[in-house]
Amino acid sequence: MLHFDSDYMEGAHPAIMERLMDTNMEQTSGYGTDEYCDSAKKKIKRACNAPEAEVFFLMGGTQTNRVAIDGILRVYEGVLAAECGHISVHESGAIEAGGHKVLTLPHEKGKLKAKTVEDYLEQFYQDANWPHMVIPGMLYVTHPTEYGAIYTKAELEGLHEVCQKYNIPMYIDGARLGYGLAAENTDVTLSDIAECCEAFYIGGTKVGALFGEALVFTKPKLVSHFFTTIKQHGGLLAKGRLLGLQFDTLFSDDLYIKISRNAIEKALELKAGLKEKGYELFFESPTNQQFLIMENKKIEELKEKVSFGFWEVYDEKHTVVRIATGWATESTDIRALLKLL
Amino acid sequence: MLHFDSDYMEGAHPAIMERLMDTNMEQTSGYGTDEYCDSAKKKIKRACNAPEAEVFFLMGGTQTNRVAIDGILRVYEGVLAAECGHISVHESGAIEAGGHKVLTLPHEKGKLKAKTVEDYLEQFYQDANWPHMVIPGMLYVTHPTEYGAIYTKAELEGLHEVCQKYNIPMYIDGARLGYGLAAENTDVTLSDIAECCEAFYIGGTKVGALFGEALVFTKPKLVSHFFTTIKQHGGLLAKGRLLGLQFDTLFSDDLYIKISRNAIEKALELKAGLKEKGYELFFESPTNQQFLIMENKKIEELKEKVSFGFWEVYDEKHTVVRIATGWATESTDIRALLKLL
Amino acid sequence: MLHFDSDYMEGAHPAIMERLMDTNMEQTSGYGTDEYCDSAKKKIKRACNAPEAEVFFLMGGTQTNRVAIDGILRVYEGVLAAECGHISVHESGAIEAGGHKVLTLPHEKGKLKAKTVEDYLEQFYQDANWPHMVIPGMLYVTHPTEYGAIYTKAELEGLHEVCQKYNIPMYIDGARLGYGLAAENTDVTLSDIAECCEAFYIGGTKVGALFGEALVFTKPKLVSHFFTTIKQHGGLLAKGRLLGLQFDTLFSDDLYIKISRNAIEKALELKAGLKEKGYELFFESPTNQQFLIMENKKIEELKEKVSFGFWEVYDEKHTVVRIATGWATESTDIRALLKLL
Amino acid sequence: MLHFDSDYMEGAHPAIMERLMDTNMEQTSGYGTDEYCDSAKKKIKRACNAPEAEVFFLMGGTQTNRVAIDGILRVYEGVLAAECGHISVHESGAIEAGGHKVLTLPHEKGKLKAKTVEDYLEQFYQDANWPHMVIPGMLYVTHPTEYGAIYTKAELEGLHEVCQKYNIPMYIDGARLGYGLAAENTDVTLSDIAECCEAFYIGGTKVGALFGEALVFTKPKLVSHFFTTIKQHGGLLAKGRLLGLQFDTLFSDDLYIKISRNAIEKALELKAGLKEKGYELFFESPTNQQFLIMENKKIEELKEKVSFGFWEVYDEKHTVVRIATGWATESTDIRALLKLL
Repeated sequence: MLHFDSDYMEGAHPAIMERLMDTNMEQTSGYGTDEYCDSAKKKIKRACNAPEAEVFFLMGGTQTNRVAIDGILRVYEGVLAAECGHISVHESGAIEAGGHKVLTLPHEKGKLKAKTVEDYLEQFYQDANWPHMVIPGMLYVTHPTEYGAIYTKAELEGLHEVCQKYNIPMYIDGARLGYGLAAENTDVTLSDIAECCEAFYIGGTKVGALFGEALVFTKPKLVSHFFTTIKQHGGLLAKGRLLGLQFDTLFSDDLYIKISRNAIEKALELKAGLKEKGYELFFESPTNQQFLIMENKKIEELKEKVSFGFWEVYDEKHTVVRIATGWATESTDIRALLKLL
Repeated sequence: MLHFDSDYMEGAHPAIMERLMDTNMEQTSGYGTDEYCDSAKKKIKRACNAPEAEVFFLMGGTQTNRVAIDGILRVYEGVLAAECGHISVHESGAIEAGGHKVLTLPHEKGKLKAKTVEDYLEQFYQDANWPHMVIPGMLYVTHPTEYGAIYTKAELEGLHEVCQKYNIPMYIDGARLGYGLAAENTDVTLSDIAECCEAFYIGGTKVGALFGEALVFTKPKLVSHFFTTIKQHGGLLAKGRLLGLQFDTLFSDDLYIKISRNAIEKALELKAGLKEKGYELFFESPTNQQFLIMENKKIEELKEKVSFGFWEVYDEKHTVVRIATGWATESTDIRALLKLL
Repeated sequence: MLHFDSDYMEGAHPAIMERLMDTNMEQTSGYGTDEYCDSAKKKIKRACNAPEAEVFFLMGGTQTNRVAIDGILRVYEGVLAAECGHISVHESGAIEAGGHKVLTLPHEKGKLKAKTVEDYLEQFYQDANWPHMVIPGMLYVTHPTEYGAIYTKAELEGLHEVCQKYNIPMYIDGARLGYGLAAENTDVTLSDIAECCEAFYIGGTKVGALFGEALVFTKPKLVSHFFTTIKQHGGLLAKGRLLGLQFDTLFSDDLYIKISRNAIEKALELKAGLKEKGYELFFESPTNQQFLIMENKKIEELKEKVSFGFWEVYDEKHTVVRIATGWATESTDIRALLKLL
Repeated sequence: MLHFDSDYMEGAHPAIMERLMDTNMEQTSGYGTDEYCDSAKKKIKRACNAPEAEVFFLMGGTQTNRVAIDGILRVYEGVLAAECGHISVHESGAIEAGGHKVLTLPHEKGKLKAKTVEDYLEQFYQDANWPHMVIPGMLYVTHPTEYGAIYTKAELEGLHEVCQKYNIPMYIDGARLGYGLAAENTDVTLSDIAECCEAFYIGGTKVGALFGEALVFTKPKLVSHFFTTIKQHGGLLAKGRLLGLQFDTLFSDDLYIKISRNAIEKALELKAGLKEKGYELFFESPTNQQFLIMENKKIEELKEKVSFGFWEVYDEKHTVVRIATGWATESTDIRALLKLL
């Protein structure tokens, strides 16, 4: 059985496991106050070219989104996001549970246009009834998006300009950030990300860590007492060093980018093979998630031999399926998959 | 200056004011435990033909929606509503502030189709990811809708059947319920309303009261400790009798329906006059809110002489405007308005 | 049957009722944007000697406390209050429902000492674990207290100094503020109140209004988008003018103080009579709530003839009862009561 | 430098690390739907002698408490707990952030008496104002307590009887449950725990796991849609098998109890040594947390050589300090410590 369901099916990159083993019996202080966390934070700030940034480690994506958004927004504010945004659809209402509405916008493969955001904000304040509505308090963007699409640097800057014009912070959900930074033909670097938003997170769970996300506030003073906010949300890991050790490893010798690149290379191998076999791609995804249009008959036929994601109904006889490569995917896996398709 | 902005511009019906004056120096116990509240509740239950119902008085529509929905839903649940639903758009995120997502559905002039709701629920539970999503825990319907449209009895029953099939309560926001019950050609009575939902409220604020809404739970045990839930939300009026007195008056001698009928009659007079003058109606509203398509030039011309609501842009040169009649509108007002149009 | 249960058993002062009658059929814009609200706000700011203040009208005490505290605090903060504080005991957990802990302090008859507050804050930040605890974000004080006790001007200033030292706002719950300002021997004026806190409210419900409280933010910019916050909490009255009219009346010709004084005078008559009859007061209350120690036998004997509040068990044979006078109490009521005691 | 600050300073028990290494490159489905989780749940239910129980894995103690309590309580309810209860003091207001008040009770070394709880509940419903107060909706108990004290079986049964009488669930926070079950002279077994409450959790973080707690609902149907509730709170681990693997290991060959016993043995060695040296214990703790009264001078002297917790001020010259042993403590550590004391 082959598995291409997602990029979080294995444990962690071997270098991380080795590090956890080596340090296992060390005694450190708790809650992220240890030296491994310090070291990891320094490396991340350097990689982001953001010496003033503040870095916090959390355990998963939904948790990071909820805690960050609850920390940033005031009681009367909501968060702008694409209709398909993870916070809007697949987090069981975590943002609303924190008291905030997700204000949804139309998108293309998960990407928002600066104009869409600007029009919303402009029309919002033109509506005489706006004080009876939820005040848009921040912008949530995913990079790569839920569809694996990526923004260009100019597009991110365009969104950020709109945010600055309306004085709201921009937040980037980077659950798969590595795969975006390693994508073919991208012109977006990690320091570009840090420069064009007020907060973002570097996904570990889907990019080689056992678990963990590094939340970066790029400018000081956006939030205060954030340690307490994390604790209150049940997001503070007692043995915080586990997060520090993982990110310290990922941000040594460019490991984060190197393993992300592997996923992209494997996706390219897959894409080439698919085209050769005459498969139609749902769209040209530049990252590790590939979407193809498959006959339902074929899906039925494959189901004992390979697992992948069902994305959406395409037409009566076809379904869009998602094949995810990852940091751990090998060329032999791709060849075995292509043989079956 | 003529005012047709809304149906809550005056104070209360004179019969209510008289009653408040007559009883002003009486001493009663607080928080709705007085005999006027008791009497009003009895009259409402009788008018609803729902002897088992429980009635609570609240102060306004947004408050009633928030408290009712918070009382009904569990932490993991959201509320289904039309995209234009008042709870979704014009309550400043009150429902989300209570922790619940508003799950929006397409509509026609604010009306939901049973099929729309059923399809949503069916597809929801077919999606393998549903446990990662907000569980639809109740249905919110407005009657009349935000556009002044009304359901037929069969349509309400159809919606209720879907709710029963999925075991979720149906809740009707009756901010303007009187105007729906008094609408021409409606086949929906108050006891029909009570029969085809688990909870609804009878709007007072927009139908002749100073303020106040009567929330009716049609079957026992849907919620418990609701008094405490109201108090917690800041919705408990110390001098609760003010609400009891108003609803007792409205439900004596059919006053609630009688004054609602006045608004409908005035709307019909208006509609006849508008058609005569060649105005195009945005749609055929059967209730007290009339929407017409007006040239922007004309709007500009009128603005010193008459006020009404701007609903939405129609095209470059036209706007949809709302003219609301109410329990207090007189034929002379309509004639004066028509003279200006 | 005589009633001394509370100070909100009657309707409103006749001057208010008259005003509501006179203006009943006027048409005004909604949500507090009318001229009566404007006028009332101006009069209140003048009476407070606080031209920069912002005034908002709400419908009741619990609502005002919840909305104000939710508007002021951040997600990681709690509110300091006396253990017997209304928000801590008798609001059904409204503050916690908004996400904030009430951090309770020992008190004397509801009064907090500056030293108690200062010690708490000092020790809080000395505890190495403070980031794992709720950050004290504001101070809640009642004047008069739940026991009818009042602060001196120096005491309020002392509390405010501590708050300023720790940079947290001070908020005064003035549900019965009038009775505090009219108390014998008080040296606290309304402008003193406004000067020594960042927010407070002037209670209407218990001091002559049908309902309503005037929330005053004494300095600009403590909260933003507060109109939206009120709406979200279900605290925005559609016919907002009802609140404006009531407070405009109360703040014309010193009516608020005059009717408060009546309650104090009646309380003094009561107190004199009680002492004459040999009753022991629970403590020397300077305001309209009088607490006396009564034999349970006597309570039993009176229960068909007079109603009042049961405060707490004193000993096996005695109970502390509360007798509340109010703006509407007359000397004949007091004499009738004394005859029975 | 010796460290006795807490029982979560090291990583995980070597058997767990080995297991994580061995399975690292396996691919499993996410969110706890894998076979390791299944296996662990079966073992836990067997160990609890509770075949009908439902088990959920979460990442930390505060998270588990918050999600469990939010899942159990209704909007109008609060949770009864000791004044020193972890949820009341050291979780940054997590319970209140979920909307629920912590109703605190007096205690002895963290232990509640059945009578204390019963008196509270009885008096609560005798107070005529109870509907204006927070309804006590569940009981929170820690075993061992924050002070390391433990209940007897009879005491737990007594508390449970009161809960049953008032129809509220009893929940046991077992952050250090292993150390309670392994305590000298305890008569409480794991199946006793399961029998005398509706929900409890088996702490992993402090008893040999890298992280993780196993939440057990002892009877079916206490909560529904709990998976969704966990996700909403950001408590769902993508690679859920990490939790399954750890608990599967801890519940194989009695490892959980064996390593807990080690901590108790080391605590006994410490206690014996302390007594020999004339130290006064703050109280006779039967578990892995030992509290002694130490001269401040001595604390100062030791601070470069050993770290431990400062519990509370004892008198001007003395402080209560906490020394925690754990699953990883060795006799050589104890001897080294005793040499310094």
